[in-house]
Amino acid sequence: MPRLIRLTLLVAALLVPASLLTTAAQAADAPRRKVIIDQDAFGPAGSNMQAILMLLQAREAEVLGIVCTSGDGWRDEEVANTLRLLEIAGRTEIPVYGGAVYPLVNSQARTQVWERLHGALYYKGAWTETWPDQGAVRRTPYHADPFLVPPSPIGAPRIKPQAEHGAAFMVRKVHEFPGQVTILTAGPMTTVALAARLDPSFAATAEQLVFMGASFNPQPADNDFAKEFVHSPRREFNMRWDAEAASLVLREPWKQITAVPVDPTTRTFFKREFIDHIAATGKAPFTRYLADYGQSFPMWDELAVAVWLRPSLVTRSQRMLVDIDTSFTAGYGGTLSWPVGGGPGLGERDAIVVQDVDVPAFEQLTLDLLTRARP
Amino acid sequence: MPRLIRLTLLVAALLVPASLLTTAAQAADAPRRKVIIDQDAFGPAGSNMQAILMLLQAREAEVLGIVCTSGDGWRDEEVANTLRLLEIAGRTEIPVYGGAVYPLVNSQARTQVWERLHGALYYKGAWTETWPDQGAVRRTPYHADPFLVPPSPIGAPRIKPQAEHGAAFMVRKVHEFPGQVTILTAGPMTTVALAARLDPSFAATAEQLVFMGASFNPQPADNDFAKEFVHSPRREFNMRWDAEAASLVLREPWKQITAVPVDPTTRTFFKREFIDHIAATGKAPFTRYLADYGQSFPMWDELAVAVWLRPSLVTRSQRMLVDIDTSFTAGYGGTLSWPVGGGPGLGERDAIVVQDVDVPAFEQLTLDLLTRARP
Repeated sequence: MPRLIRLTLLVAALLVPASLLTTAAQAADAPRRKVIIDQDAFGPAGSNMQAILMLLQAREAEVLGIVCTSGDGWRDEEVANTLRLLEIAGRTEIPVYGGAVYPLVNSQARTQVWERLHGALYYKGAWTETWPDQGAVRRTPYHADPFLVPPSPIGAPRIKPQAEHGAAFMVRKVHEFPGQVTILTAGPMTTVALAARLDPSFAATAEQLVFMGASFNPQPADNDFAKEFVHSPRREFNMRWDAEAASLVLREPWKQITAVPVDPTTRTFFKREFIDHIAATGKAPFTRYLADYGQSFPMWDELAVAVWLRPSLVTRSQRMLVDIDTSFTAGYGGTLSWPVGGGPGLGERDAIVVQDVDVPAFEQLTLDLLTRARP
Repeated sequence: MPRLIRLTLLVAALLVPASLLTTAAQAADAPRRKVIIDQDAFGPAGSNMQAILMLLQAREAEVLGIVCTSGDGWRDEEVANTLRLLEIAGRTEIPVYGGAVYPLVNSQARTQVWERLHGALYYKGAWTETWPDQGAVRRTPYHADPFLVPPSPIGAPRIKPQAEHGAAFMVRKVHEFPGQVTILTAGPMTTVALAARLDPSFAATAEQLVFMGASFNPQPADNDFAKEFVHSPRREFNMRWDAEAASLVLREPWKQITAVPVDPTTRTFFKREFIDHIAATGKAPFTRYLADYGQSFPMWDELAVAVWLRPSLVTRSQRMLVDIDTSFTAGYGGTLSWPVGGGPGLGERDAIVVQDVDVPAFEQLTLDLLTRARP
């Protein structure tokens, strides 16, 4: 029996009811865990949006709000996309906030010069002028104007984002619930950097930082997305888009930092069969949306969400010092790491770096969350 | 007759009444010009505080608020110092805002490593562990804790700062009065950088940026403070404390940037005789304070204020492209400049760089403002 069909049957026959029971018990016993998701929520769908939906579906999570930061796309288009997602999901009670439009110091012009010196980047997010044929995905065309929101196939939202800036919202919420709010960042760290510099107590007042980003020693995988790491194993888009913000954030005094880098994601993939399975069995209002627009990527952001929801998925991790290279050299935006106690002592902090996960259990969790009824 | 005494007589006999008349006429005719001053307001007195007092005394200026940003000192000590200054000056209606505590990327640890590679810095603001004998000034001792506010000889303030962050205040005010608010920054640019990244329309909505900082080709002067520029003509403290913020801010789309660099300040000095003159003739409530705590520096920040109040003081200036070096090399934080049209095209903007001023007229304006009665 093919593995995917086995998995699908397993999900249908066993896991969904079991997890529903578990969640019902949890809901009665434990307070929900507070989280702010900071996303470069490009679309119409894909890893960013699927990760948001997973969090919205998890009964144990209390999503305080969603912050959009430029990266894969420009902020305003991401905000529109996220608002529309919430309408489709019937979750318009979740507030959406605009974060940073531009990285702190980096720019498209600098990046173009860098490419002349050091070679073409595989992926540049909102600055990607031309898309590679391989791994081509459905997305709106390149547009240089950050404030342009092109028509989306999922339509324009009727609801509006909050007036408060995403960074101010993050600061306000960690102080409202000291030690209880996770900042889950799955895009560039510009907005988190602003929050940290607006309030020196921000990072230490949060419960923890969980981020998707950085790259250490990713292994070859059977999809096109892992190819870029053959020549640049330490270069990852979220960190490189705003290297200064990433370095700043990773040197803040968080109680805990959990890094979900590229490494454990190369063995994951949001397969076409997953989308078909969701289309066939999904009970949530967004089932049709995922059926029509769900996209097949490595499950970067879904994994960050899953690791936060269920830490037992992690089968291998290592505590190490992590920083991002801000020198404007060939290594710009690259991941720097050292053994604990072996760093330069320039403020670098230790992080729990996720190196491998139980992929079948992760896939089951993902499908469970995306197919269950609206909580 | 010694030049200073001539000047003093001139001020006493002629200039004060003349300028009072001028100002009275201006007050009747013209709306006051709106300004936010962003200061590393260390003390108890000195160039920072004297510049604030000049602005408060100028009837043509409407000071919307004072923002304190770490640099010469730490933010919280600067806030306390500024609040106390306003009490002493009887101007407690002016709101005071806390800005950035730390620079974006730079840190004391990085700076210490940089010094091991590239030689000791002459001056490091709040990071200056040991003060040089030459040019020694009255200031609170070095303290590594940014949030410690040591006892001040001018006493602790009874009034409080605003709860709103200085960057948010700047953003709010430029939108309240589009095209009408000058941001006058006389310290590091961290808070202005935060405002720019919180709101991409911030810089273009202000009237202009006037800043004291950067250094181009300063000429030798007869005071110790110019000595550091012999070996590093392009290195200036405000820019170097937060090179990333300075570069970011100078690449924003301001309608106008006016730079008051070190160059025109090397011929200026807040002489002991000026303090004595203020003590003898001053009519403002802060006269005793300046008599007791006024300090003799080059008139860095006073000149930035004066150039904004009276542009005709400028005798030589040049429009050029200006940026700050963010490479972590010997040149870190140094001033970069190019002829208009000759830059690398990485977003650098043109600024009006003040190269020389009418020093006697500037001194007269300063003494006029600091001796006149409270407006």
